[in-house]
Amino acid sequence: MVQGVAIVSGGLDSVTLLHHLVAAGDPPDVLSFDYGQRHSKELDCAALACRRLGLRWDLVSMPELRHMLAPSRSALVSDHPVPHGHYAAATMAQTVVPNRNMIMLSVAAGVAVARGGCYVATAVHAGDHAIYPDCRPEFIDAMQAAVVVATGLPRFHVRAPFLHWAKAAIAARAGELGVPIDTTWSCYEGGPVHCGRCGTCVERQEAMAQAGVADPTKYADPDYWRTQVEA
Amino acid sequence: MVQGVAIVSGGLDSVTLLHHLVAAGDPPDVLSFDYGQRHSKELDCAALACRRLGLRWDLVSMPELRHMLAPSRSALVSDHPVPHGHYAAATMAQTVVPNRNMIMLSVAAGVAVARGGCYVATAVHAGDHAIYPDCRPEFIDAMQAAVVVATGLPRFHVRAPFLHWAKAAIAARAGELGVPIDTTWSCYEGGPVHCGRCGTCVERQEAMAQAGVADPTKYADPDYWRTQVEA
Repeated sequence: MVQGVAIVSGGLDSVTLLHHLVAAGDPPDVLSFDYGQRHSKELDCAALACRRLGLRWDLVSMPELRHMLAPSRSALVSDHPVPHGHYAAATMAQTVVPNRNMIMLSVAAGVAVARGGCYVATAVHAGDHAIYPDCRPEFIDAMQAAVVVATGLPRFHVRAPFLHWAKAAIAARAGELGVPIDTTWSCYEGGPVHCGRCGTCVERQEAMAQAGVADPTKYADPDYWRTQVEA
Repeated sequence: MVQGVAIVSGGLDSVTLLHHLVAAGDPPDVLSFDYGQRHSKELDCAALACRRLGLRWDLVSMPELRHMLAPSRSALVSDHPVPHGHYAAATMAQTVVPNRNMIMLSVAAGVAVARGGCYVATAVHAGDHAIYPDCRPEFIDAMQAAVVVATGLPRFHVRAPFLHWAKAAIAARAGELGVPIDTTWSCYEGGPVHCGRCGTCVERQEAMAQAGVADPTKYADPDYWRTQVEA
């Protein structure tokens, strides 16, 4: 019997979510998804975080999805280049993977119900709202309604504790909880170290700076982000 | 550019759905799902139906799901025996796969959006309502609301044209449309021919009889169903 299932990519937000749930006394089972994204460095980080915290980790492979979602021209599941610059910029729409969060939440809810759990958890946050429709409060509300009907479990809960948090608040929480930030992976590129220039690298560095959290991450270009952040 | 994506298992209902959509001038791309169910005979039927109708068919493999959903003790994704008897009986709850329809609709919606389509279609029908919460009208309504929000496409549509039809009405429609019933597969068991005794075999035979449609299907036990049907 498990309490719930969390979706974890291995990035800063989702690994912090794990620590946040464990600290709240609600340790989840964890799912990561291989939907054919560019690289799997973040999946290794997800597995490592779970090993550290003693949580069950499973990988859900849906390799054909890359191929099938590629016509969306999303840079995450096609050969289109990853856009550089600020995370909230219009170019980041090139990183939208159609319906990704609904797919992941649906599978997680199925697994949670099968194991007797009563929640799914996702690390969506306020910084995602501009670009990603499936990270907004109205999406979480709609999924909450749909999951309860689909499972017939009125008390089943879609948890998104960071839904109204800015990314900097997550960075601050990571600092507070002692999350091993150096073993989280945010970069959309899959190079030997974080590139420092893609949307999530810029967002990550900005958030750490705003939160006043020391950032142990090694970036190929550690100064670019400052040129992208508005005053 | 495709119009939409239909979810097709290869059973009578979903193959009839394909013919129904084609007859309406809305030919879909088709997805079938391998979520580790007992056998894949129905998948061969789905592929064949698409070849006949000239529709694009893709298989989405999620083999780990069997393992992950197995604690639900669903007879479809574990080693628990398939229940025999009438489809609407309480024993059929043993065939519930947690959240299956939301998982499939979510993936189908992502693929539809990636390909520029504006609908997903599912063959859920009124005979499913008693046992399967994710086949009921309130589930389709909730998914409609969630998909619009998740994709940011207000005109995207979850189509379930058989939602309020009894299974016999689908059988009648199959007869009307000339659906090659002998190459649809309903049986939960994966034997050389339909068993005739599992819930879907009983339901299938009852529906064809009620609709007055000749049933070319070969059943291992062709008479059992009559003993299960209420007067």
